[in-house]
Amino acid sequence: MSKAIILLSGGLDSTVALYWARQHHEVVGAVSFNYGSKHNDKEITLAIWHCGQMGIPHDTVSLPFVNDLFESDLLKSGGEIPEGHYADENMKRTVVPFRNGIMLAIACGIAESRKVDALVIAAHSGDHAIYPDCREPFMKAIGDAMREGTYARTELMRPFIDMDKTSITKLGHQLGVDLGKTWSCYKGEDLQCGVCGTCVERREAFILAGIEDPTVYSHDWPLPKAPGA
Amino acid sequence: MSKAIILLSGGLDSTVALYWARQHHEVVGAVSFNYGSKHNDKEITLAIWHCGQMGIPHDTVSLPFVNDLFESDLLKSGGEIPEGHYADENMKRTVVPFRNGIMLAIACGIAESRKVDALVIAAHSGDHAIYPDCREPFMKAIGDAMREGTYARTELMRPFIDMDKTSITKLGHQLGVDLGKTWSCYKGEDLQCGVCGTCVERREAFILAGIEDPTVYSHDWPLPKAPGA
Repeated sequence: MSKAIILLSGGLDSTVALYWARQHHEVVGAVSFNYGSKHNDKEITLAIWHCGQMGIPHDTVSLPFVNDLFESDLLKSGGEIPEGHYADENMKRTVVPFRNGIMLAIACGIAESRKVDALVIAAHSGDHAIYPDCREPFMKAIGDAMREGTYARTELMRPFIDMDKTSITKLGHQLGVDLGKTWSCYKGEDLQCGVCGTCVERREAFILAGIEDPTVYSHDWPLPKAPGA
Repeated sequence: MSKAIILLSGGLDSTVALYWARQHHEVVGAVSFNYGSKHNDKEITLAIWHCGQMGIPHDTVSLPFVNDLFESDLLKSGGEIPEGHYADENMKRTVVPFRNGIMLAIACGIAESRKVDALVIAAHSGDHAIYPDCREPFMKAIGDAMREGTYARTELMRPFIDMDKTSITKLGHQLGVDLGKTWSCYKGEDLQCGVCGTCVERREAFILAGIEDPTVYSHDWPLPKAPGA
């Protein structure tokens, strides 16, 4: 059992990871990052809600320079969010370069300041297709960097790295997580759109998990097929 | 020859690295980080001056959350800057946890956004005593993370990792760098103090290099000895 800080976006994966972590570790804090994406405000509101329910201290770190200096359609400074399947080639436009590297490095500095042993990140196998900084070779290396670069030899926990989103959705359901109070949609409108890549991935996960999806989407068109399927 | 972005604090080491990098690579940008230290304003002004001389685009990235969430006497939110030798145990109070990890991760995201191949950092062997995130095991790991976590497979160059500050001072002199226009002092007053750990390290380097020190210090007391010397 470690003292741990969790990276909590307010999306489905990291919210399930929060409830998982509380069972296995002493969760002493959660950190959300507002890097200027179209959907940050929506998801962070829900991250704060879950932490409030659990009495876990929460910090939001603002990174306004990302919108100024980075290229990505996920950002307010970028283009339209593409629709289609999450693993489609055009979803690469929504990658925020080295986002996990930046968030983990900052959280590692916070952990070292607070004498906390470990970080938890919810990256999973479904992210691997288009996000190089969600894959295990990256996680292994940044975990080594955190251990070598701190006095506390901070540990990086990535409990979902070999799980897919369907399994995470099942786990969340088993743990009693209110999955309706998680946000995936990259568009950041009043309702989750149901048709952008990450909404499609979310809808697919509930269907494959055989769990009723509590989310209200603005569109519930038939799901597109995965590339090559 | 790579397209490179350099981490440039405006201190002696990174300024010499800038002039070194210009000889060996295509330097397409320099980035300074204002993380709320007592001396950031002083050193970043000089970083901008050198970039202006060389026609290299410069960005300052502000990280106000560091002052709010991190513990270090280097920060405006921290205690007094200790005086004495750079390698003294009490200098650990000036460590900003995982600072190089954070700055490298952000610079890596900028590099990936701009299709730049490499980053240059000026960490050197004299930093190893108290800064875990200046040592080669850290640099090796974060370099692996940058390569694995980006489409461009960004390279981390650390040309000074096996050099000491005396050798860097000599190199800067050979390259014709105006070393008087670099800032080391952690106190950030009108003049460099001459007695804090980093001023002592700077004065020692000029003496050992046999180069006249162009810096005007507010105190030029005899240098303290290294621990155990």
